Amino acid sequence: MASLRGMQQPELSKKLYKIIKSENHAIGAYESASRERISIASQLSDWGEATGDDSISDISDKLGVLLSEIGEQEDVFAQNLEDYRTVLKQIRNTESSVQPSRDHKAKITDELSKLKYKEPQSTKITQLEQELVRAEAQNLVAEAQLTNVTRQKLKEAYDMHFAATIERAEKQIMLARHGRRLLNLLDDTPVVPGDTRPAFEHGSQARQILNDAEEDLRDWAPNLEPIHSNATEMGVNLMPAQASTAATSVSGHEEEMVAGGSTTTGQLDTLPKGRDMIGSSSAAQPEYTSSYQQ
Amino acid sequence: MASLRGMQQPELSKKLYKIIKSENHAIGAYESASRERISIASQLSDWGEATGDDSISDISDKLGVLLSEIGEQEDVFAQNLEDYRTVLKQIRNTESSVQPSRDHKAKITDELSKLKYKEPQSTKITQLEQELVRAEAQNLVAEAQLTNVTRQKLKEAYDMHFAATIERAEKQIMLARHGRRLLNLLDDTPVVPGDTRPAFEHGSQARQILNDAEEDLRDWAPNLEPIHSNATEMGVNLMPAQASTAATSVSGHEEEMVAGGSTTTGQLDTLPKGRDMIGSSSAAQPEYTSSYQQ
Repeated sequence: MASLRGMQQPELSKKLYKIIKSENHAIGAYESASRERISIASQLSDWGEATGDDSISDISDKLGVLLSEIGEQEDVFAQNLEDYRTVLKQIRNTESSVQPSRDHKAKITDELSKLKYKEPQSTKITQLEQELVRAEAQNLVAEAQLTNVTRQKLKEAYDMHFAATIERAEKQIMLARHGRRLLNLLDDTPVVPGDTRPAFEHGSQARQILNDAEEDLRDWAPNLEPIHSNATEMGVNLMPAQASTAATSVSGHEEEMVAGGSTTTGQLDTLPKGRDMIGSSSAAQPEYTSSYQQ
Repeated sequence: MASLRGMQQPELSKKLYKIIKSENHAIGAYESASRERISIASQLSDWGEATGDDSISDISDKLGVLLSEIGEQEDVFAQNLEDYRTVLKQIRNTESSVQPSRDHKAKITDELSKLKYKEPQSTKITQLEQELVRAEAQNLVAEAQLTNVTRQKLKEAYDMHFAATIERAEKQIMLARHGRRLLNLLDDTPVVPGDTRPAFEHGSQARQILNDAEEDLRDWAPNLEPIHSNATEMGVNLMPAQASTAATSVSGHEEEMVAGGSTTTGQLDTLPKGRDMIGSSSAAQPEYTSSYQQ
């Protein structure tokens, strides 16, 4: 079923469509790992209590707290990947929306060459030639929007992906290191039959380790090499903020470009609804915020 | 089905049995995440090539290499968790093996009190009383072995678990940071319709990033707070190496203890087969090596 549905996607967005679907499975795996980890943490605490050994009971309960938080971080990671996946969808949507523009141009080109061969005197040829000029202009806009969106969103998506990877890793390292401190409070000196273990003496130290872990988590802040983007210069029409001016450099295409631009507009989710917004400002555009700035 | 099978476990090892089963699911989730991540990495490289954009093609291919390695680390993590799970099984097996000793003692105690009530003159009472002394001695040994194994293996198991968590995290951080460097090689300055993107100029820098990542992975070494263990003093009989001497402190039980000890021996996987091995050396015992020393 999954692959059949993939087939319904336009050729241009098929690959990304599948990546997005695979990411959904990966995210599901992390969510599942998170659930299991949290459940095991609680089971470990129960087991420790059932041993009737005070030291094991205390240590396993606090190990459970740390392991549960490590599990929570798997879920935070999964949610962050969900955000990254949403950004990939923006590229895929643009790809899907550009496909009709390519198809339209190809269709007219095809019709025109057939007509020129079959009825070289047809008056429809001029009409088709005008249509082709418009289609080409529209496609030029669509392709520019595609490359602009693709590059910007690819950087944004993997900025988020890597930031999420680093966040999970850094937090889990802190938690695991505190877990190792906890382990060292458990005396595993073997006893002889009939010996009773001395009472657990490190209760307050164990409590302190959990406090330290909480504090570390609270104080955690990302420390990342920033991802530089020039996409802030991109207007709401997915082209440079000065696009309406710059576009005039494509001489003779001004009128069609505008027509093309606004036709394409209807196909791209992220495009403005009216011409008056073209090149208006970068303030109105979907803000590019690195995940680590949020 | 899963919970029914759990019911067949001795009461004493039921909780750990379930934990070990849940860990199997958690490990499965990480294996699945690893497979998806590696598959997505390859799909991303394909997608980049299909865009026909040289810069995206190069960057996405190299992102794919790093993401694939991040995925491999999920699998290494899963395999390390499998080792930790094996150590948990050693505790569970000891728990299972101690259950009959508890049951045996309880059964004789029960029989004895019934007999004393019903046939206070029975000659079987003396016989049962002798049997009870032996059963109690056997159980004392079994319980000492249980606490010794539990504490030692709990520390060993979570030493491995936390070391694995830290290893995955540290390696993925290195890979993700190099991934961020790669992203900064992709220029996302928007273009106007008809513009062609300049050729990708950072091919050698991108290649260098992969080389750096490889080198970092190769040079990676664990840096962990060591987990201290006194279990090295434990003999192959799962008691202190001087147990045969120390055991004499449980006065009047010497003979029964030995008998008990060798009976219990048959129940514990990790116990020596013959009395002559008792207290022999710590060299023959399953070595306690922290995961980070391997």
